[in-house]
Amino acid sequence: MTLYIVGFGGGSHEGMTIEAENAILSSDIIVGYTVYADLMKEIFPEKEFFSTPMMQERERVRYALEKACECTVSLICSGDSTVYGMAGLAYQMSDGYPQVKIVPVAGVTAALSGNAVLGAPLTHDFAVISLSDLLTPYEKIECRLRCASEADFTIVLYNPSSKKRSDYLKKACEIMLQYKNEDTVCGYVRNIGRKEEESRILTLGELKDCCVDMFTTVFVGNSQTRIINGKMVTPRGYRDV
Amino acid sequence: MTLYIVGFGGGSHEGMTIEAENAILSSDIIVGYTVYADLMKEIFPEKEFFSTPMMQERERVRYALEKACECTVSLICSGDSTVYGMAGLAYQMSDGYPQVKIVPVAGVTAALSGNAVLGAPLTHDFAVISLSDLLTPYEKIECRLRCASEADFTIVLYNPSSKKRSDYLKKACEIMLQYKNEDTVCGYVRNIGRKEEESRILTLGELKDCCVDMFTTVFVGNSQTRIINGKMVTPRGYRDV
Repeated sequence: MTLYIVGFGGGSHEGMTIEAENAILSSDIIVGYTVYADLMKEIFPEKEFFSTPMMQERERVRYALEKACECTVSLICSGDSTVYGMAGLAYQMSDGYPQVKIVPVAGVTAALSGNAVLGAPLTHDFAVISLSDLLTPYEKIECRLRCASEADFTIVLYNPSSKKRSDYLKKACEIMLQYKNEDTVCGYVRNIGRKEEESRILTLGELKDCCVDMFTTVFVGNSQTRIINGKMVTPRGYRDV
Repeated sequence: MTLYIVGFGGGSHEGMTIEAENAILSSDIIVGYTVYADLMKEIFPEKEFFSTPMMQERERVRYALEKACECTVSLICSGDSTVYGMAGLAYQMSDGYPQVKIVPVAGVTAALSGNAVLGAPLTHDFAVISLSDLLTPYEKIECRLRCASEADFTIVLYNPSSKKRSDYLKKACEIMLQYKNEDTVCGYVRNIGRKEEESRILTLGELKDCCVDMFTTVFVGNSQTRIINGKMVTPRGYRDV
């Protein structure tokens, strides 16, 4: 049977693709992290859900693969199905389930939905970096921050903070400030596409001393990014005036 | 009035978000590049369209801003509304149109839709780079390729080729090969989400000698990317087995 790995976007019905909606509607059971399952229950109250708490990704994927041996399943992820999502893990764990067809359904990841809230910071080349060092050595994250800053990418930071990592955004800003000007236009969006959505545009110098939580996505402009009528806008290139 | 800048994804109805569909349905006129307007005409045959050929982006945005003084307009972009799209330019040209409210509508850019076709290459940190040097000095592109490779990002290449730049992908691969192994898992997808969609998974060494066209999006894995059951999969981190 089919196991859809569905990226549902920010969490509103409007932010989903029609393909994602169709996948969920055609599934016998929807599997996901409790918070995301609750969001989707509001949109699809007639569907059957199975949810597990945070950090139990492997158990969730295993359950979805088992279920997909007998019926059609959607494993749901916020944003995209792959970007810091579950599709990769599903493929990695798919040995032993040859009868299950894995179908990733792309969704609007926070880099894109947050971008639309702030204006147009991601017009040109960009790099996406997670500050979580749960599965990645911190030195690798630091190297990526350095290299992306040196090459003047617009940078999107996922997982900028958590209880255990409350100073990670500050440390990241200090690294970026070695290459980027402290006046670099930055922005962040919290709870993208949800009722409590909030956003702010500020400088890299100000961002360094900001407290953000794990529901926040942070945008650090390139050298050309500017504020136009209160929006964060990156031009299409370096010759584009 | 409102000027929606709508990213419609790959071009199929399924690949659009519900928000994008609603924006188009609520608009009095849809403005876009001829090829994209033709794609949307198939889905929304009852709507009024205005299209201009390639390269006439400024004329198109000017027309959309003028029209939006009197009615609701959607300016359409393939993929996302901002990523190598028109939202930034619309903000840049919006002086003199204080009565027009610009609303970017995020969409599934080729990095995400192509990712879902290939498997899950973008599970972890990634960089998006356009090889077009129309508005960006070639040295800047080269610097980004170097820095992104050095930091072991998965790299997505947009605009990998054109008639005038037929050797750019080869040159890009040669730069990446200075940092990445020639066995690095790569993939490309052509005409994502359209009838003629085709994809291939290959090594970086093979990619160097490949001919691709401007409708192709190229994915270059990080050091952990592997092939699982014919799919291109990047694990969630460096400690994730």
